Amino acid sequence: MPEIETAVAENLRRVRKETPLVHHITNLVVTNVTANVSLAIGASPVMAHAQEEVAQMVRFARALVLNIGTLTPATVDAMLTAGQEANRLGVPVVLDPVGAGATDLRTKSTERLLSEVKVTVLRGNAGEIATIGGYGGRVRGVDSLEGSRDMAAMVSEMARHFGTVVAATGKTDYISDGQRVATVHNGHLLLTTVTGTGCMVTSVIGAFVGVGKDPLLATAGALAYYGLAAEIAAREANGPASFQVALIDTLYNMTEEELSRGARIRIAPV
Amino acid sequence: MPEIETAVAENLRRVRKETPLVHHITNLVVTNVTANVSLAIGASPVMAHAQEEVAQMVRFARALVLNIGTLTPATVDAMLTAGQEANRLGVPVVLDPVGAGATDLRTKSTERLLSEVKVTVLRGNAGEIATIGGYGGRVRGVDSLEGSRDMAAMVSEMARHFGTVVAATGKTDYISDGQRVATVHNGHLLLTTVTGTGCMVTSVIGAFVGVGKDPLLATAGALAYYGLAAEIAAREANGPASFQVALIDTLYNMTEEELSRGARIRIAPV
Amino acid sequence: MPEIETAVAENLRRVRKETPLVHHITNLVVTNVTANVSLAIGASPVMAHAQEEVAQMVRFARALVLNIGTLTPATVDAMLTAGQEANRLGVPVVLDPVGAGATDLRTKSTERLLSEVKVTVLRGNAGEIATIGGYGGRVRGVDSLEGSRDMAAMVSEMARHFGTVVAATGKTDYISDGQRVATVHNGHLLLTTVTGTGCMVTSVIGAFVGVGKDPLLATAGALAYYGLAAEIAAREANGPASFQVALIDTLYNMTEEELSRGARIRIAPV
Repeated sequence: MPEIETAVAENLRRVRKETPLVHHITNLVVTNVTANVSLAIGASPVMAHAQEEVAQMVRFARALVLNIGTLTPATVDAMLTAGQEANRLGVPVVLDPVGAGATDLRTKSTERLLSEVKVTVLRGNAGEIATIGGYGGRVRGVDSLEGSRDMAAMVSEMARHFGTVVAATGKTDYISDGQRVATVHNGHLLLTTVTGTGCMVTSVIGAFVGVGKDPLLATAGALAYYGLAAEIAAREANGPASFQVALIDTLYNMTEEELSRGARIRIAPV
Repeated sequence: MPEIETAVAENLRRVRKETPLVHHITNLVVTNVTANVSLAIGASPVMAHAQEEVAQMVRFARALVLNIGTLTPATVDAMLTAGQEANRLGVPVVLDPVGAGATDLRTKSTERLLSEVKVTVLRGNAGEIATIGGYGGRVRGVDSLEGSRDMAAMVSEMARHFGTVVAATGKTDYISDGQRVATVHNGHLLLTTVTGTGCMVTSVIGAFVGVGKDPLLATAGALAYYGLAAEIAAREANGPASFQVALIDTLYNMTEEELSRGARIRIAPV
Repeated sequence: MPEIETAVAENLRRVRKETPLVHHITNLVVTNVTANVSLAIGASPVMAHAQEEVAQMVRFARALVLNIGTLTPATVDAMLTAGQEANRLGVPVVLDPVGAGATDLRTKSTERLLSEVKVTVLRGNAGEIATIGGYGGRVRGVDSLEGSRDMAAMVSEMARHFGTVVAATGKTDYISDGQRVATVHNGHLLLTTVTGTGCMVTSVIGAFVGVGKDPLLATAGALAYYGLAAEIAAREANGPASFQVALIDTLYNMTEEELSRGARIRIAPV
């Protein structure tokens, strides 16, 4: 299906042309790197988390990214306010449930966000997604120890249940909107040696769903783009820190043609 | 006017010799990079934002940098406390009104800081500065979409109105103290691909006004130094992330002679 | 004593094999870099500071790192809760008293943490440690201006008084558990040009005490490993930012044999 790769490249072209503003309410570990990844891909990030301004800020946004990595009750309240305003305006919402399953605060805040906000894309690692879906994944801190065995079934069932695109990322990424399951086979092991690489791809997804019409395809495309950049960056990296530098440079430099040639995405009906 | 370049190099020499402590109350995106830029230029950064300690911390400082990039009402309160103590002690205050105009919280907090604290230098992009001055710049998130057409007139009028040095930075930087207008013609487009590059130069301005007698000249010098470093760094950068690494290394390595040779500053009476 | 170097290399091997989860409640400047250092050495960092979840999160941890660099009363309360739960579970606690002595909030919070939590390792620069011990070190912001002259006596007296390993780091690092004093002679001056290099080594200490049986040896080993990595990284660095990249890459790449060959640790009875 060459039209998948063409559509993915078209999404990148639109991000670079339209510079979508992506409003982030995110964690303290990744504020800088997710902003830099957003800029590198051509998007325009804004970080704003005060309850007093989030509803007003999200009006400028083409996408809202919510990330609970260092959540407090106050930031969750701001996420709910921003998320509901995004829903009212038709702005897509991407949720990264960092560490869901590790503590009650994380698990319950994720449940609350999923029930009180219409989420467009839920992106986590296999353990987080399995926990949220009740598949019994185990989570230790913010690490995923294991996911569900049948990932494709899990993400498609959860997509139907929550009415959202669900992406469980890992060596292979599984994405479903309930009708289709996409798998993405790009990526590199060095991504596991840098903090926030999951959060960064969530920001890329935010930009892609901000400009794309099909959230499943936008999510798969963002994952392929990011994973392919990691593969290229790994060739010149000497370790985790030079890898991160090369990753951001590669996201910036990759042409749309390189992306459509290198993306390894398969989409099948459920 | 070779004395301008000489004075600028002298400011850098003094920063490196005197290692001024620069107290920052800044945003969550740039805490790390503004501290690293401060260290690279020879200053000594401290980040402290708790209401309970800011007045005590600012007593050690040669400059106070306030940045509202991820403001909350609590951090604005801390900025007011620290700013008023700085005023009492004669410590210069530099204000970076990130995103002023995008939300009421940002616009009103900027107005409050400007009215309740004597600010030495106000540095923003053209859109932020135009908004604060009532010139109708438009701001989307933290991006500036357009500034006032006649920048020199704008900054000099605002400098007189607010009784502060006003710096509107962009391709050309415009700085005025109400009597003189300085323009700085250093810089590089890659600065727009990295988050917090405006916040970083605000920290450089903090260090320079901390050691310099003439805030207009100190501000122009800091902008020239930073812009020149960006020009040099861009030559060896492969993209935004390697550019940021090279930028900080270049700030650290640049000699005072290189600065006085490369600075492109013009100063004229209003 | 070749057994010291062997034991240190064994600690590194265990970190890489056991990937200890290190729970951090740390400052806003270093959240990203301390997480990245933790991952580079093979540990598994988690950052969580909400009062509502810290006790639950620390149950997964092999070590708890507390760092007051940008403290607020709320974060200190969370540190007390997490620290007391860590004590109950036998999880070692490492405290980094950033800026103790600069403000009453920092000094008193440090005193409170040391009196209400059983701290396994207290690591600061000479000025911070001297201040906490009442030796009259002077602290300006978060910089240490001077430490006690007789460092070995100071750390051993403080270790006995507080019932904790005390590490005062600088050109030479002094570590004592009250019975022995270890000195570490690794390191590089470029460490003073990057923000959070002290906080980063505190995270390395956290991982090492998480897997090691002897906190004095684990602390000395972590300091030697980190200092040796700095020496190696400095050879290829062009300035502070490329040094930081090389430092993290070197921590990741260093073999256990390189560490046992390059570590310069001496241990003597008090």
